[in-house]
Amino acid sequence: MKKRVGEYLMDCLSNTGVEKVFGVPGDFNLAFLDDIISRDDIEWVGNTNELNASYAADGYARMKGISAMVTTFGVGELSAVNGVAGSYAERVPVIAITGAPTRAVENAGKYVHHSLGEGKFDNYRKMFKEITTAQGYITPDNAQTEIPRLLNAALAEKRPVHLHLPIDVAMTEIEVDTAYEVSERQPHDVSKYISMVKDKLESASQPVIIAGHEINSFKLHAALEKLVNQTHIPVAQLSLGKGAFNEENPYYMGIYDGSIAEENIRDYVDNSDAILNIGAKLTDSATAGFSFGFDIDDVVMLNQHNFKMNETVAEDVTLPDLMDGLLEMDYVNEADYLKFKRPEAGQYDLNGDVLTQETYFKMMQDFLAPSDVILAEQGTSFFGAYDLALYQGNKFVGQPLWGSIGYTLPATIGTQIADPNRRNLLLIGDGSLQLTVQGISTMIRQGLKPVMFVINNDGYTVERKIHGENEPYNDIYMWDYKALPAVFGGEDVVKVHDVSTSEELDQAFEAIKAYPDMMHFVEVKMAMHDAPHKLEAIGKAFAKQNS
Amino acid sequence: MKKRVGEYLMDCLSNTGVEKVFGVPGDFNLAFLDDIISRDDIEWVGNTNELNASYAADGYARMKGISAMVTTFGVGELSAVNGVAGSYAERVPVIAITGAPTRAVENAGKYVHHSLGEGKFDNYRKMFKEITTAQGYITPDNAQTEIPRLLNAALAEKRPVHLHLPIDVAMTEIEVDTAYEVSERQPHDVSKYISMVKDKLESASQPVIIAGHEINSFKLHAALEKLVNQTHIPVAQLSLGKGAFNEENPYYMGIYDGSIAEENIRDYVDNSDAILNIGAKLTDSATAGFSFGFDIDDVVMLNQHNFKMNETVAEDVTLPDLMDGLLEMDYVNEADYLKFKRPEAGQYDLNGDVLTQETYFKMMQDFLAPSDVILAEQGTSFFGAYDLALYQGNKFVGQPLWGSIGYTLPATIGTQIADPNRRNLLLIGDGSLQLTVQGISTMIRQGLKPVMFVINNDGYTVERKIHGENEPYNDIYMWDYKALPAVFGGEDVVKVHDVSTSEELDQAFEAIKAYPDMMHFVEVKMAMHDAPHKLEAIGKAFAKQNS
Repeated sequence: MKKRVGEYLMDCLSNTGVEKVFGVPGDFNLAFLDDIISRDDIEWVGNTNELNASYAADGYARMKGISAMVTTFGVGELSAVNGVAGSYAERVPVIAITGAPTRAVENAGKYVHHSLGEGKFDNYRKMFKEITTAQGYITPDNAQTEIPRLLNAALAEKRPVHLHLPIDVAMTEIEVDTAYEVSERQPHDVSKYISMVKDKLESASQPVIIAGHEINSFKLHAALEKLVNQTHIPVAQLSLGKGAFNEENPYYMGIYDGSIAEENIRDYVDNSDAILNIGAKLTDSATAGFSFGFDIDDVVMLNQHNFKMNETVAEDVTLPDLMDGLLEMDYVNEADYLKFKRPEAGQYDLNGDVLTQETYFKMMQDFLAPSDVILAEQGTSFFGAYDLALYQGNKFVGQPLWGSIGYTLPATIGTQIADPNRRNLLLIGDGSLQLTVQGISTMIRQGLKPVMFVINNDGYTVERKIHGENEPYNDIYMWDYKALPAVFGGEDVVKVHDVSTSEELDQAFEAIKAYPDMMHFVEVKMAMHDAPHKLEAIGKAFAKQNS
Repeated sequence: MKKRVGEYLMDCLSNTGVEKVFGVPGDFNLAFLDDIISRDDIEWVGNTNELNASYAADGYARMKGISAMVTTFGVGELSAVNGVAGSYAERVPVIAITGAPTRAVENAGKYVHHSLGEGKFDNYRKMFKEITTAQGYITPDNAQTEIPRLLNAALAEKRPVHLHLPIDVAMTEIEVDTAYEVSERQPHDVSKYISMVKDKLESASQPVIIAGHEINSFKLHAALEKLVNQTHIPVAQLSLGKGAFNEENPYYMGIYDGSIAEENIRDYVDNSDAILNIGAKLTDSATAGFSFGFDIDDVVMLNQHNFKMNETVAEDVTLPDLMDGLLEMDYVNEADYLKFKRPEAGQYDLNGDVLTQETYFKMMQDFLAPSDVILAEQGTSFFGAYDLALYQGNKFVGQPLWGSIGYTLPATIGTQIADPNRRNLLLIGDGSLQLTVQGISTMIRQGLKPVMFVINNDGYTVERKIHGENEPYNDIYMWDYKALPAVFGGEDVVKVHDVSTSEELDQAFEAIKAYPDMMHFVEVKMAMHDAPHKLEAIGKAFAKQNS
């Protein structure tokens, strides 16, 4: 069957489950966009800029397991690299497609716009090599091998890949033999490693699992929960990957974040004689600056391409392999363990005082509904929100490893469009919002109904906690935030709320519940130096790390 | 004398003439920012995001000859690469400084935030290699050689350089021997090339100079004008580099843009038997898709690192060398030539009809004042504005080679802050504005008073002219543009104008002249498919190039 390469690419993407393609038009991708908008199974989502498109694609992939983005050569693709690198760091599979000049233009070394004007065309491709797991230059001859190879790589590694697609190639017809299908995983034998783990567990008196973000990336939640229910090993989660484990499960203990963890959790983990690190990374932001009390060399690492126990290291393993092996393991823990204590409701007063971060998060805890998607921006929002007790049905999105401020606003475009019927709560601050604010326009354009809580505390509080508490570089300019939805064309579809006290936050919550079919924008005024106590501690740890 | 490396770097920058440093704070640069804000000779300009910072730095360098920008590791520097690459393509020297994790953190391969989480720290540096002319990893030992080397490279090549500055290095004290001074240029002997040029000119009957953007980069305006006054060779300019030649000089002919140039200019240039291309690049956007009527192999190329005449090619030459050589050349042209005809004033009616692009630019021509800085966004704005007749004192900023939409808005922060007393006119369209809109907040915060003309024609008209005239991917969401200044905190300092007709544009012009001490924001509504005739032609050329 004859198909244009662009059509074939969209067929392949559709077969992976992609239903939306994010991006910004440019003349090197325009003709290819016709092959997107003509389809019934895929919708084009035009973003206001490429960075926002890359964040939206990341959010979508966190929900749906994969996403795609189209930008133009040079100016477009380079504006997206920060977002793509974040997807790489946190293992989110995004198919980044660059519409490029024709092969004839490239081969002639022409001085075309969006090139560096020197007749070379490979600079940007080299840049993408550093931040993607696989890259390809698509031609009519290789399309049916390269496109499947790249999609398989993204799905196997849960990381972005880059497709360089000259516009003449996208338009060229090829004879398509077979449709692309997501390939079955080829399992590796990990039994020798698993038996080592079993031996360690059998001689342990206080085993624990630390779970993290790779569980989310590889969608191993059910497998992990099955493992825990079989083995009775209790689970602590990192903030990096919150949501990896069902917080309603009886074997859930709570968040482990090094020296600032709740005392009993910290003691349990730090004194464990068998720590299984499953899909987790002990980063500085997840451990308050590597302040764990255990010896990291004693931890059994079970990660994608990394099994490590004592002197044994293996890279030819995948996390799904390791999980399958663990599920086969015949072991049951009999030690006592801590059980996570869900916070009691209503532990705050409703009054007219200035709202504090502490009360804000206590109230947010009670507001949370069982199927909400929560996006928490790196800043006071994330450092408060990662201590929220989730329901099994919640989805939590943060970016504590990559930590790019402004990420969550456009990411909400992606998470919300992935399932428009699920309530999305975006928790963000003013400093972060300013970077990517035009994403609000895309939410409105797409008819999305997220609930946005924008903390107005007059600057980069997260930075103030690290260095320069009152220095001018941590100040931002005061905007009229509540006017943003109207400016972006949402006057009739966005309900705006002004909150400075717990009473007003309570009223806003009631209004949000009363109008579930509207988008809500809540400006929450709090004091400049008020911060969740965990941010205070992590700020100090980061300052020390920088000295 | 003891200085911290960060202090020494700022001393060096100050000695190049840098008075503003653009950027966004992040924990890997915060402590270093203290060494910026403590100075009297340099001001920190906090931007709303890093892409905007890079565009602002580009605009500032186009005015002042150099600029500097500070971002943080990973998330910050990668958000800026599109802007840095544009500075590379168009030869604008920007010192891009990345505040990075400490050497101890890097050497230990720690999993820190803003890294890819794999213990490697060189990925982003490798990316910057592709888009900067020199790169360095600053240490206390090499600071006094590397920093001068990098600044010299930026100044010699008029291109960006990248400094990787670990935060512990920035804070380390070193014994500073001598202050950095901008080094004298080492001239190369180009006499043999110049005598070839002279021979060609002497046997020619219709010589012409094509001048372009490298004249602006190397600030060779006075030299070029002197050359022309000595030799009487007439000058055609490219749109890429408009402003390279004084349009009031009697030897100025007009804009040459290939097949779409005015007939008599096109004929003169296409039939010239001695074309000297001085600091110009014959790119697709400057020549309506390479539609020149001459044989490019017959052109004498006089560019930075490129002298080419017939079979003779030399890369060991600089444009200033070549210009010096040309100024020594004993040659006077005696052929007749065309003289640029400045448009007559008032060639339009003031009425209540829908304003057209044609009338808009005719009126803009009359509105232009002799010392205005004009920034024209790639789109209908640029393709109309490059035909404006400039005064000697005007400065024109466009980006037709790199062509990143959204560029000019933050670039105006840089051009305007470089000289707050000079009137800056920003001509931009709605589609472009949406990418970088938050830059308006920075203008207001800094007390700048540019005049912004925002064409509201409901989408990416420049793309419509290439492909997909009525396709949804070229639509954008309608914003309430006139409300933007108030949202961004400028209600009292920005005068907002609503223009749909020539009468209203005239009234807006009068108000702008009446209130020169205010920022002005003019929304100009025009029809979706209306475009300057040159854009219509270039759109077709680009569509053909992509097929």
